[in-house]
Amino acid sequence: MADEFDVIVIGAGPAGENVVDRAVRGGLTAAIVEERLAGGECSYWACVPSKALLRPIDLAAEVSRVPGLSLGPIDVDKVLARRDEAVSGYDDAGQVRWVESVPAEFVRGRGRLDGPKRVRVTTDTGEERVLTARQAVVLATGSTAAIPRTPGLAEASPWTSHEVTAASSVPERLIVIGGGVVACEMAQAMHGLGARQTTVLVRGGRLLNRMEPFAGELLAESFAEAGIDVRTHTDVARVERPEPGGKVTVHLPEGPPLEADELLVATGRHPATRNLGLASVGLPEDKPVEVDDSLRATGVEGGWLYAVGDVNGRALLTHMGKYQARICGDVIAARARGDELPAMRDLAGGYGSPQVVFTDPQICAVGRTEEAARADGFRVRVVDYDMGSVTGAYLLGDGYRGKARAVVDEDRKVLLGVTFAGPGAAELLHAATIAVTAEVPLDRLWHAVPSFPTVSEIWLRLLEAYGL
Amino acid sequence: MADEFDVIVIGAGPAGENVVDRAVRGGLTAAIVEERLAGGECSYWACVPSKALLRPIDLAAEVSRVPGLSLGPIDVDKVLARRDEAVSGYDDAGQVRWVESVPAEFVRGRGRLDGPKRVRVTTDTGEERVLTARQAVVLATGSTAAIPRTPGLAEASPWTSHEVTAASSVPERLIVIGGGVVACEMAQAMHGLGARQTTVLVRGGRLLNRMEPFAGELLAESFAEAGIDVRTHTDVARVERPEPGGKVTVHLPEGPPLEADELLVATGRHPATRNLGLASVGLPEDKPVEVDDSLRATGVEGGWLYAVGDVNGRALLTHMGKYQARICGDVIAARARGDELPAMRDLAGGYGSPQVVFTDPQICAVGRTEEAARADGFRVRVVDYDMGSVTGAYLLGDGYRGKARAVVDEDRKVLLGVTFAGPGAAELLHAATIAVTAEVPLDRLWHAVPSFPTVSEIWLRLLEAYGL
Repeated sequence: MADEFDVIVIGAGPAGENVVDRAVRGGLTAAIVEERLAGGECSYWACVPSKALLRPIDLAAEVSRVPGLSLGPIDVDKVLARRDEAVSGYDDAGQVRWVESVPAEFVRGRGRLDGPKRVRVTTDTGEERVLTARQAVVLATGSTAAIPRTPGLAEASPWTSHEVTAASSVPERLIVIGGGVVACEMAQAMHGLGARQTTVLVRGGRLLNRMEPFAGELLAESFAEAGIDVRTHTDVARVERPEPGGKVTVHLPEGPPLEADELLVATGRHPATRNLGLASVGLPEDKPVEVDDSLRATGVEGGWLYAVGDVNGRALLTHMGKYQARICGDVIAARARGDELPAMRDLAGGYGSPQVVFTDPQICAVGRTEEAARADGFRVRVVDYDMGSVTGAYLLGDGYRGKARAVVDEDRKVLLGVTFAGPGAAELLHAATIAVTAEVPLDRLWHAVPSFPTVSEIWLRLLEAYGL
Repeated sequence: MADEFDVIVIGAGPAGENVVDRAVRGGLTAAIVEERLAGGECSYWACVPSKALLRPIDLAAEVSRVPGLSLGPIDVDKVLARRDEAVSGYDDAGQVRWVESVPAEFVRGRGRLDGPKRVRVTTDTGEERVLTARQAVVLATGSTAAIPRTPGLAEASPWTSHEVTAASSVPERLIVIGGGVVACEMAQAMHGLGARQTTVLVRGGRLLNRMEPFAGELLAESFAEAGIDVRTHTDVARVERPEPGGKVTVHLPEGPPLEADELLVATGRHPATRNLGLASVGLPEDKPVEVDDSLRATGVEGGWLYAVGDVNGRALLTHMGKYQARICGDVIAARARGDELPAMRDLAGGYGSPQVVFTDPQICAVGRTEEAARADGFRVRVVDYDMGSVTGAYLLGDGYRGKARAVVDEDRKVLLGVTFAGPGAAELLHAATIAVTAEVPLDRLWHAVPSFPTVSEIWLRLLEAYGL
């Protein structure tokens, strides 16, 4: 017999959980379906474990810049043990209890659409259960790592973000394919934890190619100094791994092949739309689920389908998925009441999502890069400043190197984008996120005085350099 | 013969230097008079050396919370050496060169007003020089440590912020009188560097009594755990120090006296207005120089006198002095051109100055406390949140403890004040400074998405707790 709920969410990652929370708070009943662990990729195989691995590396780098402190060797077992604690030992009991406390029904199994407002759940043991939604079904299935079709690559069973963040030991020699956030963070984490030969193969000309060019350049300098071998403009021709889990050989288009103990592929992610039953409601499979600013899927009759987080392809970032989810849950509850609240819309996405790369130096950015702002037709002025010359940065340690960039909309005198790259820069970002998202005019930012001697004084320097 | 400049500034601390910079940029000529070192108290005997001393202590505390890292003992000599480097070996040649590069004339000596638009400078060797200002004289003499009239205290030649930040060795036993920022920072620095018996005597009921109560409470917990002895509601009856630099005995109104090797008095500061010739222009001596929002001294005929920084008593903070100075320099230049630019006003001061206390936990605040907001007649709602429960904080280390408070103006739905107390919280402040100063509405802040997993996610939690 079918179970009926106001809202059914497929996928109990952070985005799905937030939808349920907001919908129930809005007076609706909800069920959430999860095939693996409640808490999702982020909690077990992405943001959380990666930061648990990176934190000691980052702190060790900070210590190395402060005269008078000396650090012993990193105890890798303890670092891995804290990572295990951070992921709750890959046990989601606590998350399931949280869902039940919302209260919402937690349904363990693989969920797929089965026609309008119907979700068919298949459990581990093969049993099936059909859930019916009175108001809405929300897709929050996230994304999966993309594996390029390089000959031999899939057969080599390379690590993805999933396996590297869950590593129970550190390979001596690691090859990383990719130059984006996951590639950079994990190259540094593994190298810092003992992968003494770490090689990063980047197809393009630089690391972090969606960010301002100086970000990847500063990071490449840091990698070079640490002894991480970064090779740009490098394609992979072929991969060989004769024995599962054994040595892996990576053949390049020219030159000698590379050999390593492990291979990490971090070349992007696909929205998890396969086997989700999208065809049963007339949507294409294997493409992000397109949504409007209320997170409602476009092209579905009756408007009962929503998608939040990575699966809609808008912004593959946990915090943006959660943000969308809060809006989506509120929207569904409002529409159920017969309200249509125009304030509940994904506004932030349009400004350019904030993002932090937890490497050393940390890199963070919000809004548009110079290139993106120009491409979008803005009349742009760019202001750069050397973060190391700020007193607060000098006081953090010897040889602080960093750079900040503000991209100004010259017509409206507001910030279109801000990038900071420097040790410990992560927490600088939110000020920029407020300034960009709230479109605070520069001549108003001028009166927001940064405290001396914080690194935030970079704000003063940027505004002075602009001419204020 | 008299030298004539458009602007004469007395005091070459950060505030005075900023006045000169802005005035010259505005087309004026300027001279700046300094009795001691160009760069001022902040650069040599306050913010800069204190942070150089605190940084290793702070970082050591961070390391102690991260499993897998282990720190050797702090090498105090190296810490003191870096402090010396941070203060340029108490040599101001670099700062003087900077002044000259503005370009402005650097005049070494003690400056005092000598009637309208006249400044009399006395050099070390007793020579006198009279400078005349065509447009304005700016007082930027800062402040000096206040020594209470406790019997025996002045005679004991106690340390003030000046001496403690310049210490060439660390006393084994230190008594600190005071519970404000300097007292707390220096108690922690000295204790961390080896003052194993550190006692803090606080007249009132808590540390940091101008901030939200929880700030001082969290700090007191941290002090207690570290073994710093904090005694609240404690007056000092009498001090004895028979031999200069020898053992010092502090007598309390009751109970046994305390003995220490050194005594630090940090009970507040007085504006440096004495022997400044204020009477020669009809102003009271030994009181802050009262100014309007353009930093012009009130009650002086012709309106040619200005005062910036500590000496005007508005906000005894380097960054606020520099902010006032930028405005003041611009105002003087504008008035010299015959402009009157109403945008050039000290707006920030009215919101409540941002401030960071660089202890562990770090404490930072901007705007009004709950108490101040209520006293000012606002309809207030207070939102508190446990910072330790934010994922980003957990990832920084075991046992992260912290708390955040937002003070909301319920009529206008903007933030009146924000306080963060937690390890590494310093750089969180600027987001709050922008939000408070720019009066960003809460429903707009809602769309400024904090990146996961940063500590800045406290912003999301505060807004959720508020009900957004």
